[in-house]
Amino acid sequence: MDNSFRAWSECAADLVAVAAGRRPADLVILGGQLANVHTREILRWDVAIAAGRFAYVGPDASHCIGPKTEVLRWSGYVIPGLCDGHMHVESGMLTPAEFARAVIPHGTTTMFTDPHEIANVMGLPGVKLMHDEGLMQPVNIFTQMPSCAPSAPGLETTGYEISAEDVAEAMQWPGIIGLGEMMNFPGVVNGDAQMLAEMAATARAGKTIGGHYASPDLGPAFHAYAAGGPADDHEGTCEADAVMRVRQGMRSMMRLGSAWYDVETQITAITEKGLDPRNFILCTDDCHSGTLVQDGHMNRVVRHAIACGCDPLVALQMATINTATHFGLERELGSIAPGRRADVIFTSDLRELPIQRVIARGKTVALAGKITTECPHIAWPAEARNTVHMGAEKSAAEFTIPAPDDGAEVAKVRVIGVVENQAPTQALEAELPVRGGRICGQGDICQIALVERHRARGSVTNGFVSGFGYQGEMAIASTVAHDSHHMIVVGTCAEHMALAANRLAEVGGGVSVWKDGRELALVELPIAGLMSDAPAEEVAAKAAAMVQAMADCGCNLNNAYMQHSLLALVVIPDLRISDLGLVDVRKFELVPVVQEGGQEDADA
Amino acid sequence: MDNSFRAWSECAADLVAVAAGRRPADLVILGGQLANVHTREILRWDVAIAAGRFAYVGPDASHCIGPKTEVLRWSGYVIPGLCDGHMHVESGMLTPAEFARAVIPHGTTTMFTDPHEIANVMGLPGVKLMHDEGLMQPVNIFTQMPSCAPSAPGLETTGYEISAEDVAEAMQWPGIIGLGEMMNFPGVVNGDAQMLAEMAATARAGKTIGGHYASPDLGPAFHAYAAGGPADDHEGTCEADAVMRVRQGMRSMMRLGSAWYDVETQITAITEKGLDPRNFILCTDDCHSGTLVQDGHMNRVVRHAIACGCDPLVALQMATINTATHFGLERELGSIAPGRRADVIFTSDLRELPIQRVIARGKTVALAGKITTECPHIAWPAEARNTVHMGAEKSAAEFTIPAPDDGAEVAKVRVIGVVENQAPTQALEAELPVRGGRICGQGDICQIALVERHRARGSVTNGFVSGFGYQGEMAIASTVAHDSHHMIVVGTCAEHMALAANRLAEVGGGVSVWKDGRELALVELPIAGLMSDAPAEEVAAKAAAMVQAMADCGCNLNNAYMQHSLLALVVIPDLRISDLGLVDVRKFELVPVVQEGGQEDADA
Repeated sequence: MDNSFRAWSECAADLVAVAAGRRPADLVILGGQLANVHTREILRWDVAIAAGRFAYVGPDASHCIGPKTEVLRWSGYVIPGLCDGHMHVESGMLTPAEFARAVIPHGTTTMFTDPHEIANVMGLPGVKLMHDEGLMQPVNIFTQMPSCAPSAPGLETTGYEISAEDVAEAMQWPGIIGLGEMMNFPGVVNGDAQMLAEMAATARAGKTIGGHYASPDLGPAFHAYAAGGPADDHEGTCEADAVMRVRQGMRSMMRLGSAWYDVETQITAITEKGLDPRNFILCTDDCHSGTLVQDGHMNRVVRHAIACGCDPLVALQMATINTATHFGLERELGSIAPGRRADVIFTSDLRELPIQRVIARGKTVALAGKITTECPHIAWPAEARNTVHMGAEKSAAEFTIPAPDDGAEVAKVRVIGVVENQAPTQALEAELPVRGGRICGQGDICQIALVERHRARGSVTNGFVSGFGYQGEMAIASTVAHDSHHMIVVGTCAEHMALAANRLAEVGGGVSVWKDGRELALVELPIAGLMSDAPAEEVAAKAAAMVQAMADCGCNLNNAYMQHSLLALVVIPDLRISDLGLVDVRKFELVPVVQEGGQEDADA
Repeated sequence: MDNSFRAWSECAADLVAVAAGRRPADLVILGGQLANVHTREILRWDVAIAAGRFAYVGPDASHCIGPKTEVLRWSGYVIPGLCDGHMHVESGMLTPAEFARAVIPHGTTTMFTDPHEIANVMGLPGVKLMHDEGLMQPVNIFTQMPSCAPSAPGLETTGYEISAEDVAEAMQWPGIIGLGEMMNFPGVVNGDAQMLAEMAATARAGKTIGGHYASPDLGPAFHAYAAGGPADDHEGTCEADAVMRVRQGMRSMMRLGSAWYDVETQITAITEKGLDPRNFILCTDDCHSGTLVQDGHMNRVVRHAIACGCDPLVALQMATINTATHFGLERELGSIAPGRRADVIFTSDLRELPIQRVIARGKTVALAGKITTECPHIAWPAEARNTVHMGAEKSAAEFTIPAPDDGAEVAKVRVIGVVENQAPTQALEAELPVRGGRICGQGDICQIALVERHRARGSVTNGFVSGFGYQGEMAIASTVAHDSHHMIVVGTCAEHMALAANRLAEVGGGVSVWKDGRELALVELPIAGLMSDAPAEEVAAKAAAMVQAMADCGCNLNNAYMQHSLLALVVIPDLRISDLGLVDVRKFELVPVVQEGGQEDADA
């Protein structure tokens, strides 16, 4: 954090002097319609700022103006900077600095970020780099210490395994605000000692335990999860989910991400059921760079909540003071009141939320959609830029799936069935042709491979996938491969799969699409194989080209790339792939690709 | 604190097991109408308790019942235990243990106490004793570290002067929740370094800074006070006060004490103005033992708020979750939700709040108005029981006021004018007769003396007071003498004043009323001269007899004893008395009792 930015108590004498009229403010805003999120009122009030904090907020700030005071006159609305209650920077394929640069013009001045992805790749050192770059930004980036790597112990090998000791260590860092989403909810419900120890370490540090309960079961299992300690949850998808979370004394985080639409279905808890809105919070969870470039960030979420029938001031509270209170920061940010960080937005319309000016810590950081500040980059070290460790160059042979030695012309195999617009896959079966001793894809069924890339073990797990619609000779490889982030390669042709995999090893990670012997698209993600330190516009353009290349290969799924990158997410049913093999997530078991007649049950 | 009472994170495994149905609960409450203060709903929900905390709160707790589980069936309301957001135990003339014993049957399970009075007498060691006895109780007593002793530096000598270092030290004690009311508001507004340092020490410890802004000025001075850091204020007396506090991001504490009636005048900010109620909190500030015995405690305040037109569930939030949130305890208490301390009240009526059962930390502590638990006493050490240090026995001569050597038959003197039902006094003047070289009281004007009792300096400051209506030969002495708590003696006769003073030295402090050569009433307050460790009923009876004795001496003021005990409060205008002399609080100056003709301005 900028060392010139002092704690409230360290600059209280200055703030008092400004408010009392003994010292001029650095900046005064006159004549605005101020949104007071403490009282839920609009007030025609002035604001005086000093030392990056609000010094005077009241009916007349003229006594705070000196010869060197910057004076802004604005008759529109003056609202607190927006807070994203839970999000993953990596989802934007951007570093924290570039993510900040993309969202600041949208009015986001505070983010609660969970660097879960880099934790799977680089562990605690990766989390620390994200944390440190976050603290360098002109806006507030708090870090939630990731809680669950691996997501599914025993079914995958991550680059790093987080321990309760790691959590306790991270709690001492200045920018750590709590524990990232406790996604091992079956573990909590079953009293898993490590999960409870991670939450205890967080509680002892006086910080907030993030939740993630991705199940529709609101019976005793959910109550047991709440009794374990998570203080919030953003996995609710319907009104009953939201209501039950809040009734359990948790905060309901309602998300609108690039592919999450959970606000409209839950906000009726407030707009129709009339519950006290103080325990509802808005967040994005995951935003692609394209969304940030084209649609916005938290302003998009607030606007959407209002469009869903929520009172604009209540919606604003859900993206400001409610969030701040949740993380124990209500005296530090989230409102326009004395002592708080001077994070303010000028907007001419409280419903559409055009963002005309963004002030963070008392400095104008964006004007009319353009950023006016620097977002400094940390010097990402070699170990962060060199994370694709596949061992020797891959050959096509490594992507062939040998047939059983039974001389049959077809083989019965398991197939991961991708389902349009759904995160869960289907566990399909198919009979595929055998040619030259190998099993070949057919029709819509092509190959999928998981290439180990953390420890250069050189392993490749092969399987089959359907639903993408790929045609001709093609392959797509990605080092974004939730949650363990090895490399997922999908293709119709072993040679192309090897080309794409080797290409990513060459550029240090990202996404590469190949067709007919040439590379159609490449998104370089050199930081941990997850993020680019290029601007969001550039990454968004490359990502768009990549998606177009997938379409050019025959894929016509919505969110095609997201489907691709989630195929190794071994905590979501039904069938996934990991570095250890094919995983039947319904049973949490490894299963072979080739089914031997009638012996299926014995396979496991 | 009871060592068997574990932190949530330490017993999370047990709570999870109970909620999941793997382990039976200690106590289950079936069939109640549960007040959910998170959502502001009444739910027909069950409750299961283990390890003193809520384990399961939901529609059906039958799966939590085992053979040894205590089961309570109650079809009335089940509401969270009540919290007093700011109060002084000493005002009840009771030790923390006896105060707790008096208020537990009224449903108070959490108190935020500021031992300001004992701090003035005994300093940090006294605060520590209060803190330690608080932690021994079966209910939650948190301590706010007093911030201002002396209240008026230079105008009085307290038994102890609190420093910023004291504050920093106290912040490390387990039961310290924050800083007690920052009553030196002119100091904060003027940037007083010590006051800012005390607040900074509190902020660094992550604790809550209590406020006290006792002025109707809501202009820049109030804004400057808010910018200094206080997070709450209970000195508001009208709607505008409450509104302005909340608009500044402070919490408005509305009090109903024995003699404070500030709820009705401020609650319209919610009931009529419609402000978001989350930042309003109910408290008592000061309750006499008689109020506790006859009228109640926080149940009286909640009932009153409802009678003033507040929605019952909103009123309940103001005495539960709002308070908990303010002190950073919303995951620890203040609601009926998993993990929180199992503090619950059974009541049959949400408006009248009869308290049928009180459960604290999972154990029934009161039934039908009777306490069913122990409230342990600390072993108060000799230094706490022996605080009346007057030096040699007082003689009547020490209470005579010599006339000037001018031979005149009358003397012009300053008189403290007590005003019915008001805390401020008037600065009066009078011409009094001179007899035998001394100035004598006349009519309604009698004598007042401040007897130094902390350092045995033996000093007596004499003056005149009017308004009590005392007649005949009498005197009343009290070691409760806000805020420095020397001894205030008021009387019509020097001999009686000496008798009363010597009597208090003999019993170690309290209140003694004398008339016609005999003691009419005595309230022994052996702990610091402020508190009794006898039960509230006993103290209330003695206090009532003392007030009756004051009436028998001719006094017919309302709150006569409170008027008496506030006459040394040198921060409230106009004229007061201290160990250093008569104080003109309008000018913050010491002034002589005898006015010399035409030289008044030069006197100071």
